[in-house]
Amino acid sequence: MHIKDLTHPNQLHGLSIDQLQEIASQIREKHLQTVATSGGHLGPGLGVVELTLALYQTLDLDRDKVIWDVGHQAYPHKLITGRYNRFHTLRQKDGIAGYLKRCENKFDHFGAGHASTSISAALGMALARDSKGEDFKAVAVIGDGALTGGMALEAINHAGHLPKTNLLVVLNDNEMSISRNVGALSRYLNKIRLSEPVQFLSDNIKEQVKQIPFVGSSLSPELGRLKEGMKRLAVSKVGAVFEELGFTYIGPVDGHNLEELIATFQQAHQIPGPVLVHVATVKGKGYEVAEKDQVGYHAQNPFNLGTGKANPSNKPKPPAYSKVFAHTLVKLAEQNPKIIGITAAMATGTGLDKLQAKLPDQYIDVGIAEQHGVTLAAGLACEGMRPVAAIYSTFLQRAYDQIIHDVCIQNLPVFFCMDRAGIVGSDGPTHQGMYDIAYLRCIPNMVLMAPKDEAELQQMVVTGIEYTDGPIAMRFPRGNGYGVSLIEEGWEALPIGKGEILRHGDDVLMVGFGSMVYPAMQAAMILRGYGIEATVINARFAKPLDVDLIVPLAKRIGRVVTLEEGCLMGGFGSAVTEALLDRGVVVPVTRIGVPDELVEHATSEESKASLGLTSPQIAETVRRAFTVSLPKLSQEANLIR
Amino acid sequence: MHIKDLTHPNQLHGLSIDQLQEIASQIREKHLQTVATSGGHLGPGLGVVELTLALYQTLDLDRDKVIWDVGHQAYPHKLITGRYNRFHTLRQKDGIAGYLKRCENKFDHFGAGHASTSISAALGMALARDSKGEDFKAVAVIGDGALTGGMALEAINHAGHLPKTNLLVVLNDNEMSISRNVGALSRYLNKIRLSEPVQFLSDNIKEQVKQIPFVGSSLSPELGRLKEGMKRLAVSKVGAVFEELGFTYIGPVDGHNLEELIATFQQAHQIPGPVLVHVATVKGKGYEVAEKDQVGYHAQNPFNLGTGKANPSNKPKPPAYSKVFAHTLVKLAEQNPKIIGITAAMATGTGLDKLQAKLPDQYIDVGIAEQHGVTLAAGLACEGMRPVAAIYSTFLQRAYDQIIHDVCIQNLPVFFCMDRAGIVGSDGPTHQGMYDIAYLRCIPNMVLMAPKDEAELQQMVVTGIEYTDGPIAMRFPRGNGYGVSLIEEGWEALPIGKGEILRHGDDVLMVGFGSMVYPAMQAAMILRGYGIEATVINARFAKPLDVDLIVPLAKRIGRVVTLEEGCLMGGFGSAVTEALLDRGVVVPVTRIGVPDELVEHATSEESKASLGLTSPQIAETVRRAFTVSLPKLSQEANLIR
Repeated sequence: MHIKDLTHPNQLHGLSIDQLQEIASQIREKHLQTVATSGGHLGPGLGVVELTLALYQTLDLDRDKVIWDVGHQAYPHKLITGRYNRFHTLRQKDGIAGYLKRCENKFDHFGAGHASTSISAALGMALARDSKGEDFKAVAVIGDGALTGGMALEAINHAGHLPKTNLLVVLNDNEMSISRNVGALSRYLNKIRLSEPVQFLSDNIKEQVKQIPFVGSSLSPELGRLKEGMKRLAVSKVGAVFEELGFTYIGPVDGHNLEELIATFQQAHQIPGPVLVHVATVKGKGYEVAEKDQVGYHAQNPFNLGTGKANPSNKPKPPAYSKVFAHTLVKLAEQNPKIIGITAAMATGTGLDKLQAKLPDQYIDVGIAEQHGVTLAAGLACEGMRPVAAIYSTFLQRAYDQIIHDVCIQNLPVFFCMDRAGIVGSDGPTHQGMYDIAYLRCIPNMVLMAPKDEAELQQMVVTGIEYTDGPIAMRFPRGNGYGVSLIEEGWEALPIGKGEILRHGDDVLMVGFGSMVYPAMQAAMILRGYGIEATVINARFAKPLDVDLIVPLAKRIGRVVTLEEGCLMGGFGSAVTEALLDRGVVVPVTRIGVPDELVEHATSEESKASLGLTSPQIAETVRRAFTVSLPKLSQEANLIR
Repeated sequence: MHIKDLTHPNQLHGLSIDQLQEIASQIREKHLQTVATSGGHLGPGLGVVELTLALYQTLDLDRDKVIWDVGHQAYPHKLITGRYNRFHTLRQKDGIAGYLKRCENKFDHFGAGHASTSISAALGMALARDSKGEDFKAVAVIGDGALTGGMALEAINHAGHLPKTNLLVVLNDNEMSISRNVGALSRYLNKIRLSEPVQFLSDNIKEQVKQIPFVGSSLSPELGRLKEGMKRLAVSKVGAVFEELGFTYIGPVDGHNLEELIATFQQAHQIPGPVLVHVATVKGKGYEVAEKDQVGYHAQNPFNLGTGKANPSNKPKPPAYSKVFAHTLVKLAEQNPKIIGITAAMATGTGLDKLQAKLPDQYIDVGIAEQHGVTLAAGLACEGMRPVAAIYSTFLQRAYDQIIHDVCIQNLPVFFCMDRAGIVGSDGPTHQGMYDIAYLRCIPNMVLMAPKDEAELQQMVVTGIEYTDGPIAMRFPRGNGYGVSLIEEGWEALPIGKGEILRHGDDVLMVGFGSMVYPAMQAAMILRGYGIEATVINARFAKPLDVDLIVPLAKRIGRVVTLEEGCLMGGFGSAVTEALLDRGVVVPVTRIGVPDELVEHATSEESKASLGLTSPQIAETVRRAFTVSLPKLSQEANLIR
């Protein structure tokens, strides 16, 4: 059987270990080819090929539900649930998503792009099952990195208290988040991995096992294998933390030994209540280059399969915003030992690995723990340090209450640096950095800024470090800058709450925030061709807004356009609108940004084009708003989408 | 010495156990008297009197920093840090706050009203200390309820990985959150409490102890006491979970035995790295009524100290919104077994204790774990259940990413019921439910509604249950309804996104949301006296907004006032403004609500008056906006505050 003929995962049931190994090879081949061609996540999927096959051989996927944490570990799952033939469209517009989506496939029971959600979701399904008197298995597969996220521990705490609720948690322990995993729990798991599994059962489990039908009943073909597997139940010292928290612990199991995995899962299914199977996997398994560089091959741009090297780019690109951010932060941190960079398991993504390499004492990786990371930053700020919380816009959502309760209410000088703010491209809706302007600007004491280009980003890093009156946040986009000259010395902080005029014109006032400033300027050039002269403002700050600059101009010019790469509901455009109306300036405002809908995965360019955020589209929107009379009331055609 | 003469907690240092016991009595007396007179939190403070005194006798409070989790357990701390003489102003406007605030006292090192933040903050301070080469003790005092919050576990995971960072976590284990604590960790702690402390040291600790100067050095006066205390180091089986996570575990210690506590703390201070002292306390200790009814006396309205009974109210009050909510939900749940109420350790506050009593199988308390609770609800929704997440507005901030990532992106029908939305009165800034309109309406797929009174709340409960197209949220205020007739049967769902006209008038359009609808109506009556006739709309929905109703009226009337009990930045008024401008209706809009500042503790009435939210103030604001010409550009006087 070839994997491409597999239309239903239950077709795995009859296969021998040899046949499964063949399927495993086919999965790896397709996985590698696809990511090498199109880019995507590599290490997580390669590490769970056997785990996936073994688990699915012990389940009835027409009834049982497997919840995959994060989703980028679910590529093997995708390949054996009818998506092999479309897998080459991975992460492309209208193609297979890079994470999990319920709407993509009936076997995707819970979508996930962020970590640590699977146990909660699986437990919810298990409780619903019991409430409805149904009978299916609910299984969460969670990485050791994701397990350290607070909500996963909350879920463990809850599930462990429900001995009558059958739930299987499969711990995919590859000792990594994206980078090497940190924290006491990780060290504990490592200790277990290095220990010999204890080859006996606790009395408690023995008693439970007695009550399981298969023991002592007529011999089934699998009984021998099951008995073999029972030996691996290691419930004494190993796994004590999970046992004390109410789980039956089984493990560690070699995550690349199909026989052992199958026996273990079969047996785990027989044990009532919450069960945790600890599977030791190797990230990137089966691709030597990836096994050796697990951080580098967590995810990859297109690369040469033979060498593992990235395909050469056709043209040199300007530096990425992340890189400029990290470079600038390291420079400043070298001069100021009070600067502490904090990442939540995203050292490479945020660029803080540069800080770690250069100034390890000024670098903290808290693990997948944004909540703790932000309040830790607040504690550091209390003591006069300059904490820089480098957290993607989408992940900062995880620490929303900590931003409000611990940072803003106490007005503590924590500097939030939000990479990936705005459209993120192929990662899709779970990762879009759309909401930060709306969710941050409503909090008292917060300052929120965004640079128009990578040089201004450098100035804003300085600004954020020097501003000690309270919290301050900077958002900047995924991807590359414009190639403007970087500032190598003599950085100066920007005045808080002050924007700048980039262009003068009497016909329309365009107020851009962050990444939309250059597009606004380009649109202004196009508009000139239509005889429309625009004043263009680089707002720099969404909060406090430069009302002294914007309001008089808006009043004089009489027509305003706002531009932002973020949600229109409550976003930057609303800030401008509020400011105008509060000051009695009643003029038409056209807000350009992201409408109230999810933005699916595609390239950033495709997303921007579909949202009307390219310069020609902006010019057209402005021209139309300008040349037609105000629309009739019932017409909604003029709505910006 | 009387406690009122205590100006600095270090004055405790010389006191004997007898003297400390006398101080403990004085603390309890003042604590009880104050709360009996003014209302406030009772049980948490009474339970930590000895813990506080013992801890402070072993610390130098000029250097060492104690971070109290939540803050309502810190009343004894407040009474011995110079606030005795002002303590009668507890929770009153300009008086002593009911929680902790950094600005209130130099010994309040970290503010807290929400749970689970203390370890993160203390660890941040400890890391700052080590970075700066300073030398002080960082101590977090956290309840067993708060410890189950994910961020506390994240912090344990981080701290346990830092053997060189001295940090003391004092676990105040009273077996309670507000209600009886739930979860596996709680059961585990209970198991420890019931076990005999193991009377020996692990080799590891023995080795560490050898290196401590006091062992083997010249006899100090405390040496005997210290040695006694060493026996209590129970590091073998008891506390294994904490030991495995890198902490040195000491306990359990009798939380009301001063001698034992002092010896234990002294010894804990000698142990390097992260240390957890497990203190077994009794919530409400020393006041029999409170010890017996720990849920009821967690916090109290004014009551008779002798009987423990609430002071009789002068006049009968309409039912509280919480009560109407719970009553209605229970009625519906009786008819629909798919309804599952979820609380995060707030059974009494949300009224879900009524559901628990009546339909225990349709009730889930997840503990202080809002993140898990919301994603659990998402899992339940996947299986066709009707999960109702009853979480205060302020606590829902804790689950912001789960709302976005697990509920809204997947468009799952979870019903969020946010009590305490808007002004919360004496609980102060950490508890104000100000931000939910802004932080929820920016998320695609979310529906957000608010009832004008308690009968409409009933209708909205029905609406939320019946709406299965996606997520829906209802916000309602703290406190009592208007006394309108409740609906006892024949409830009908409201049409989604439709408001209602309550009053017609041609001069101004007032659009109220939720709790501001009645004040808008009352203001309209007052305005009539000035010859201004208002149309008043009950918007019901902030999202989707009833644009078909609002926009044509706004266009015709030409002047709009919006009213909301929530932050003006990005709130309901902004939603109306966006809708008008998007449709080309360019009219003056006056937004009435909560400005961009923290609202301190006071009665709700006082807060509303100071924010200009009373009916006469609203009328005056509208009249002024109406009668004066539009303000000159540079004048900011017309800004609503």
